[in-house]
Amino acid sequence: MKQVKALVFDTFGTVVDWRSGVARAVRPFLVAHGRADLDPFAVADAWRRRYQPAMEECRTGRRPFTQLDTLHRENLEHTLRDHGIDPAGVAEADLADLNLAWHRLDPWPDVLLGLFRLKKKYFLAPASNGNILLLAQMAKRAGIPWDAILGAEAVQAFKPRPEHYLRTAEVLRMAPAEVCLVAAHNRDLRAARAVGLSTAFVARPTEHGPGQTIDLAADDNWDCVATDFVDMATKLGC
Amino acid sequence: MKQVKALVFDTFGTVVDWRSGVARAVRPFLVAHGRADLDPFAVADAWRRRYQPAMEECRTGRRPFTQLDTLHRENLEHTLRDHGIDPAGVAEADLADLNLAWHRLDPWPDVLLGLFRLKKKYFLAPASNGNILLLAQMAKRAGIPWDAILGAEAVQAFKPRPEHYLRTAEVLRMAPAEVCLVAAHNRDLRAARAVGLSTAFVARPTEHGPGQTIDLAADDNWDCVATDFVDMATKLGC
Repeated sequence: MKQVKALVFDTFGTVVDWRSGVARAVRPFLVAHGRADLDPFAVADAWRRRYQPAMEECRTGRRPFTQLDTLHRENLEHTLRDHGIDPAGVAEADLADLNLAWHRLDPWPDVLLGLFRLKKKYFLAPASNGNILLLAQMAKRAGIPWDAILGAEAVQAFKPRPEHYLRTAEVLRMAPAEVCLVAAHNRDLRAARAVGLSTAFVARPTEHGPGQTIDLAADDNWDCVATDFVDMATKLGC
Repeated sequence: MKQVKALVFDTFGTVVDWRSGVARAVRPFLVAHGRADLDPFAVADAWRRRYQPAMEECRTGRRPFTQLDTLHRENLEHTLRDHGIDPAGVAEADLADLNLAWHRLDPWPDVLLGLFRLKKKYFLAPASNGNILLLAQMAKRAGIPWDAILGAEAVQAFKPRPEHYLRTAEVLRMAPAEVCLVAAHNRDLRAARAVGLSTAFVARPTEHGPGQTIDLAADDNWDCVATDFVDMATKLGC
């Protein structure tokens, strides 16, 4: 990690607890639309299951690069239909507001302290599939001290496409190894390492809820392995 | 200004005093290289005179979009040659460091107070021809509280090309009129208004030094006209 000058962070799952945050917004929506019988966590999980397939359309070139806010909105309408709610019968303002749940996710409890310590030594930015406005509003609401808002929209490529990581290094005018991806997902780290980035794993064992089975631990010799962002700051001498 | 949700700022001249900051870095460089006879402000002005022609190569499509750090470096070498200094005889580290003068510019004295007040009500970002790293390092050093680092690199188009302003609004997922360009340059505001952005003028009568003759006042009925960022915050009810 000695050569690293910038830390770039996966965001959904690594920085913020998307599942709790989305379920928190889904619950009153279901109540307001007469569907308090549905489990808001199950709806959040169903909404999230459409995330990778939607981006895959863009990764393969079948669809041009599209802001995640737009994909989230399309996925929301599909998810509501799958649960017997017709989005055409919901007020536009209610759909738009629910879609902004992804702008209002809370960081895990260690994130702010860890990032404020890391920020003195490193350049910090998200490397997320979220669009710039989503990531910026999330940071503004929660006080996340990014030095810049990078991510898929800034480089016009979704992870884990190699261009995502390489263009992020180009924007930072750094060699790939000078940029370290921090993620709670081994797959993301594998893709970053394949094109020369440095890698740091932080465990988020409840990202997918109490029954999580994947990404419970590092599955390779990543350059740094930490229990949370505060532990990572200590390990990196911050 | 009632519909405005985001303020995007011209940076060189409007937010930071580029001329004093560049001259401050040029002075010790000239002394170290035996040319204390040269006026650092004259060298700063000469360096800056190459700014528009270099971007024009990219605006016209003769050259692909290029990070301003790269254009600044090329322009620096030309400027040194014009002043009888052969850049091939200067250590690479010295040239690289002098080029970073543009990352280390100071904001005008009203900027931080004004932006902290405006930030509570508006989304704030630079809309500058500077590249993302330049703008982010400048903000990190000076404490400028941007919500995101936008600008030419994020939208892959230099001002005053219409795409610059329109793509900035697209990134913000706002209508053009919901985005207000803040600038000390009437020409920039004209280009932004031509594609539907809202406009705010702030006078910076010493940007070009004591003998400045242009942009001393608003030359059109811009949506807001202020003497500085603190005055603008007051005028916008912040």
